[in-house]
Amino acid sequence: MNEQKLEIVKSKNLKPKPQSDQIPFGRTFTDHMFVMDYEVEKGWHDPRIVPYEPLTLDPAAMIFHYGQTVFEGLKAYRAEEDRILLFRPDMNFQRLNRSSERLSIPPIDEDQVMNHLTELISIEKDWVPSTEGTSLYIRPFIIATETSLAVAPSQSYKLMIILSPVGSYFTGGLRPVTINVEDQFTRAVKGGTGMAKTAGNYSSGYQAQAKAYKEGNADVLWLDGMEKKYIEEVGSMNIFFKINGEVVTPELNGSILKGITRMSIIELLKKWDIPVVERKISVEELYKAYEEGLVEEAFGTGTAAVISPVGELNWLGRKMIINDHQIGELSQKLYDTITGIQTGKVEDRHEWTLEVK
Amino acid sequence: MNEQKLEIVKSKNLKPKPQSDQIPFGRTFTDHMFVMDYEVEKGWHDPRIVPYEPLTLDPAAMIFHYGQTVFEGLKAYRAEEDRILLFRPDMNFQRLNRSSERLSIPPIDEDQVMNHLTELISIEKDWVPSTEGTSLYIRPFIIATETSLAVAPSQSYKLMIILSPVGSYFTGGLRPVTINVEDQFTRAVKGGTGMAKTAGNYSSGYQAQAKAYKEGNADVLWLDGMEKKYIEEVGSMNIFFKINGEVVTPELNGSILKGITRMSIIELLKKWDIPVVERKISVEELYKAYEEGLVEEAFGTGTAAVISPVGELNWLGRKMIINDHQIGELSQKLYDTITGIQTGKVEDRHEWTLEVK
Repeated sequence: MNEQKLEIVKSKNLKPKPQSDQIPFGRTFTDHMFVMDYEVEKGWHDPRIVPYEPLTLDPAAMIFHYGQTVFEGLKAYRAEEDRILLFRPDMNFQRLNRSSERLSIPPIDEDQVMNHLTELISIEKDWVPSTEGTSLYIRPFIIATETSLAVAPSQSYKLMIILSPVGSYFTGGLRPVTINVEDQFTRAVKGGTGMAKTAGNYSSGYQAQAKAYKEGNADVLWLDGMEKKYIEEVGSMNIFFKINGEVVTPELNGSILKGITRMSIIELLKKWDIPVVERKISVEELYKAYEEGLVEEAFGTGTAAVISPVGELNWLGRKMIINDHQIGELSQKLYDTITGIQTGKVEDRHEWTLEVK
Repeated sequence: MNEQKLEIVKSKNLKPKPQSDQIPFGRTFTDHMFVMDYEVEKGWHDPRIVPYEPLTLDPAAMIFHYGQTVFEGLKAYRAEEDRILLFRPDMNFQRLNRSSERLSIPPIDEDQVMNHLTELISIEKDWVPSTEGTSLYIRPFIIATETSLAVAPSQSYKLMIILSPVGSYFTGGLRPVTINVEDQFTRAVKGGTGMAKTAGNYSSGYQAQAKAYKEGNADVLWLDGMEKKYIEEVGSMNIFFKINGEVVTPELNGSILKGITRMSIIELLKKWDIPVVERKISVEELYKAYEEGLVEEAFGTGTAAVISPVGELNWLGRKMIINDHQIGELSQKLYDTITGIQTGKVEDRHEWTLEVK
C-alpha cells in the first residue's frame, strides 16, 4: 500500500460544542470525519477528511445482511498546556487489522491511517474536552458495502473514523459496580469471533445485559461458551482479580478480547513487582477463594472506564461482596496511574502516549 | 399493534427486467420495496411501499457498530396459469420474530407484514421469473437505526423488504456437491445466536468458507462449538443423512437454524412412512456408518437450493464418497415434490402455499 494524499474538505457549518461535563456517551459528533474506500482493483484508496454527514447505501449493501464489519475504540485526552494525547493508538490499529483478518476484510496500512487520524484530531482539536474524566472518543470502523445478497466476502468496503466528545464514564467518580455472572447466554467460543471487535459480538449480549439490569446489576460477567465454568470478560471490559496478593486475569484463549488497557495494566503490575498471572480461572475457584476471604479486589478494564472496580458479583443466587463495596487500593492506584499517563500528569515512561501536533 | 394503512408510492422509472435464465444471485432488485419504522413511542408505524432507493443513515447508526439486525429469506414462484405462490411465508415471519427476540428487537405484527408483502409482490408481479428453477427472492430485514455508540438495544429500527429475481441455484440442474467438515472455526454454540437469522452468524463463517473453497469444496459442514464432535448444519443449509434406510438430521439444540425446508421435509417423510429421526449425530458415528457402507444419501436443505445433494464429505483428511457422487433417489423425490408444490405442479395437500392475488 502506497502513502496516499489525504484530501481535506472543511465543513462550512460548524456545530456548537457541548458543555464538557454534561455529555451523554456517543451521541454528539464533531464537524468532520475520516473516510477511505476499498475496491478489489484499487485497494484502500481516496483517504479524505470531510464534513460529518449521513451515509448513503443501497438496501442490499452487505453490511445490512451478513455483518461483515469491525471497529475500534480509543480516546484523545487534553493534557497540560493544551497538549492532546492519544493512548497507544498503534495497538488499536493493529487490533483492527487482526479483527479484519477474522472477518475476511482486507487490512489497512496502520501507519497511514494513524497519520490521517492525527490530522483529523488536529482539525477537531477544539472538540477535545478539558474537564477531568472527559475525552474525545474515537471510533474507527469498517463496513462491507458491496450490493449483493450472496453469502461471501464483500468486494468493497468503507473505513470511517468518527469522533465523539464524552463525559466522565462514572457519574460521581470511580464507583464499584455490581455484576451478574451469566450462566445461560454465551458471548463467544473457541473458533468463533470473540477475539475480534466485530458488531455481532455486542448485540448478542443484549438479552443477558437486560437480565442483569433487571436484577439490579450494572453489567454481565461472561463465562466460557464450552463449559460455562471459566471466567472470560465483563460486558465490554476485561476482568482482573486480586487474590491473596496475586493479580489474576483470564488468559487470552481466542474468545477473549485482547484489551489494550488490560495489556497496559499487566505491564504496570510487572514493573511494580506485583505478582500478576494470566491463566484460566473458574468461577468456582473464585468463589472458593472468596469464601476463604482471599479475594481482595476485582476490577474491569477497558477504554471507556479505564478501571471499573467490582464491588459485588452475583452467581446463581450466591453473592460475593468484594472489599466491602469499596474501591481497592490497587484499583485506585492503577486508575490514577493510567489516567495520569493519558492526561500527561504522570510521566510516560513506556512511550504509551502519542501527541497530536 | 393495530392494522395500519399501507401507503404506496409508485416508481416513475421502471427498470428493465433481466432475462430470467441468466440472473446472478441477489444483485438485481425490483422497482419497489417495503419499509416500516419503529420508535419506542410509536411502535412499528408508517408501513409503505416506495421506489427502491438508497438508504440514508448517520455513520453512528447502531447497525454499523453493534450488529443488532435480523433477516429472512423466502421466495415467490410463478406457477401454472401465471399464478404466483409463496411457500409457507407465515413460518418466515414467525422465525423473524424469534430471531428478533434473541437480538432484543421489538416484534412485528406477522399477519400485517405478510399482507403488506403480498401487496408488494402483487405490484412487482412481472418481476417473478417463469423459467424453471427461477423465482423472486424475498429479503425482509430489520436494522437498528438509533444514532448512538452506547452498547444497548436501539430505540429505533427500520424493517425493509427487498425483492430480487434469481436464477436456478444450480447451473445445469441438481448436482451433488463436495463439502468440508470444519474442525477449527465455530459457527455457533449453545447460549449464542445460532438459532437466529442475524448478520454476525454469516460473516463469521467466511474464513472457514475460504478454506473449504481452497481445498476444492463447495461448502462447510459445521460441528458443534463445544466438542467439535456433533454435526450441526451446512453453510446456510440444514443437513440430512439417509443411513441404513433411516433419515437422520441433527436435532434443534439452540445453535442450529430451524429451517423451513427442513421442517417441510420431515413432514413429507413422515407422511410417506419413511423413518426420520431428529437426534444428535457425531461425525464419528457418520464415518463409522460410512465405512460399513450404510450411508445411502446426504443432502442439504434450504430456501436457496431447496435440496442440495452431497456427493462427498472431507473430514480431517478422510473422504466419504456418498452414493457414488450421484443424486440419491430420495433426494430427487424430495426435490421434485417440494419444487412441485412451490410451483403448483404437485397438489398442495399441506396448505403450504399462499397465492398472491
